[in-house]
Amino acid sequence: MQVSVIGSGEIRDKFVEDMCAELGELLAKNGFVVLCGGLGGVMEAVSRGAKIKGGTTVGILPGSSFQDANPYIDIKIVTAMSHARNAILVRSGDVVISVSGGVGTLSEIALAINSRKEVIAIESSGGISKEFAGKTLNGQTIHRARDAKEAVDIALRIVKPK
Amino acid sequence: MQVSVIGSGEIRDKFVEDMCAELGELLAKNGFVVLCGGLGGVMEAVSRGAKIKGGTTVGILPGSSFQDANPYIDIKIVTAMSHARNAILVRSGDVVISVSGGVGTLSEIALAINSRKEVIAIESSGGISKEFAGKTLNGQTIHRARDAKEAVDIALRIVKPK
Amino acid sequence: MQVSVIGSGEIRDKFVEDMCAELGELLAKNGFVVLCGGLGGVMEAVSRGAKIKGGTTVGILPGSSFQDANPYIDIKIVTAMSHARNAILVRSGDVVISVSGGVGTLSEIALAINSRKEVIAIESSGGISKEFAGKTLNGQTIHRARDAKEAVDIALRIVKPK
Amino acid sequence: MQVSVIGSGEIRDKFVEDMCAELGELLAKNGFVVLCGGLGGVMEAVSRGAKIKGGTTVGILPGSSFQDANPYIDIKIVTAMSHARNAILVRSGDVVISVSGGVGTLSEIALAINSRKEVIAIESSGGISKEFAGKTLNGQTIHRARDAKEAVDIALRIVKPK
Repeated sequence: MQVSVIGSGEIRDKFVEDMCAELGELLAKNGFVVLCGGLGGVMEAVSRGAKIKGGTTVGILPGSSFQDANPYIDIKIVTAMSHARNAILVRSGDVVISVSGGVGTLSEIALAINSRKEVIAIESSGGISKEFAGKTLNGQTIHRARDAKEAVDIALRIVKPK
Repeated sequence: MQVSVIGSGEIRDKFVEDMCAELGELLAKNGFVVLCGGLGGVMEAVSRGAKIKGGTTVGILPGSSFQDANPYIDIKIVTAMSHARNAILVRSGDVVISVSGGVGTLSEIALAINSRKEVIAIESSGGISKEFAGKTLNGQTIHRARDAKEAVDIALRIVKPK
Repeated sequence: MQVSVIGSGEIRDKFVEDMCAELGELLAKNGFVVLCGGLGGVMEAVSRGAKIKGGTTVGILPGSSFQDANPYIDIKIVTAMSHARNAILVRSGDVVISVSGGVGTLSEIALAINSRKEVIAIESSGGISKEFAGKTLNGQTIHRARDAKEAVDIALRIVKPK
Repeated sequence: MQVSVIGSGEIRDKFVEDMCAELGELLAKNGFVVLCGGLGGVMEAVSRGAKIKGGTTVGILPGSSFQDANPYIDIKIVTAMSHARNAILVRSGDVVISVSGGVGTLSEIALAINSRKEVIAIESSGGISKEFAGKTLNGQTIHRARDAKEAVDIALRIVKPK
């Protein structure tokens, strides 16, 4: 099970930082490999959380250097494709979870839906995720999660339907 | 001067169809090379308009075949990169004009702003363009145009500042 | 008719410089739109030749700036995808012509054959083109051309079979 | 340590099949994460070998479906970018090992050298690897390995210089 976590490259808020770490921990504990853009902010905090629980983390890097990766990335995919890597990131998840975020995250939500991926947005994280949680785009509703725990519960229901 | 026109792959509305053709005509008349995704709907109608006025049209195709291009495309760029070509399309415009559209168009608006391109959305065309006209994302406001003529006027002001 | 011209980003030899310009002129005169990587060396000399005869030139740029293009490029495709743009360049030609070149050109020859494009290598231009002219890769023979004129003759036979 | 293994999508020869499995085993035993194109042939046999020793395998898939991956791939990167993914695969290795192969592999060797990666070709595996082992391209010599063991020894010297 692979999950793509998308979100801001910067976090200004301790609350969101902690939520990301908790999200990473819960995803790892539930057996998800955590994919992200490999850089800072949400990507780093989620990767850090996943590593606390011994999970595996993958960074789909936009640049051309391994050194762009945050220190919690196990596997570094060096695309050298700038924002076009956003399309690869969302395609590579069985499900996509969105935390906070700006236009980069918005492009990923849209690309995810365009590739028929289910997207879960954590409303309380603010930013684009708050704005788009529960919204319907091209007939597909973005799942609204109140917090990290609910996001992981929804993700599990999507990838392991009973 | 290159303009990237983004929008739906299908048009259900004669009014939008005519607006696209008018947009293509006005862009060509004002010396813009018209870039688009090369397929049907908005892409085809704008290309058709541009050719009426003897303009040059470029299709940045998502698939692997020249034959995917609509009949009004002069230059066919065969990316074989699916939606990742959206990033190339918006980067290749001096300015971006959005007509109608769904999640594909939304991904292009977001990628455009992420690449610091100015985006003009024609409000009366509906869809994503209506929803995002005038909206501010990452501190950048999407220009609101009432119709094709105003969109081209704004585009000219952006690429030829006095 | 679109032709992709591939070759070195630097030319050290007046003879190759002149051959490229002649190639560009002949391609334009015969109605080909000339696609290339948009940078210097072979790409610039061929584009310059094409413009002398009023042809249309397209640069599939690896970087993220219009300003990387040589001054003879009409249409600038800004991929921001580094070498991955090589795959787009060769796919977008009805036929591929190789002049001189190093490993970048070699990757393009290989990608072209992998996409079932016919490749014409000008033997007298040296480099990779000399080395691979007449060679068979994956059951497909790279056409051997002695000079620019023969390369264009072969290209015309390929795109306009009788 | 990440190694990118490149080679044919089909193997006709038991000797090469066994060599690939041995290569995968040795790479995993020495702590390398094994990246490959994720499909059949060399990619599958190397992945199978790596999994025998409990290694981690990553498939950089050209298509748009998880299901294209061979059964020994742990982490699936779904690029939907066709051959352009070759550029990502070679950039993501600290070192590149080439086994057998045709034009796809040749494009990867060339792209690897263009990205200043060291390439090790196993001569006895035949194909492009045999042809290019020991050859110098753009001033960089492709390392010649007689067998899987020597390839891994060279790879270790490159990534862990004393």
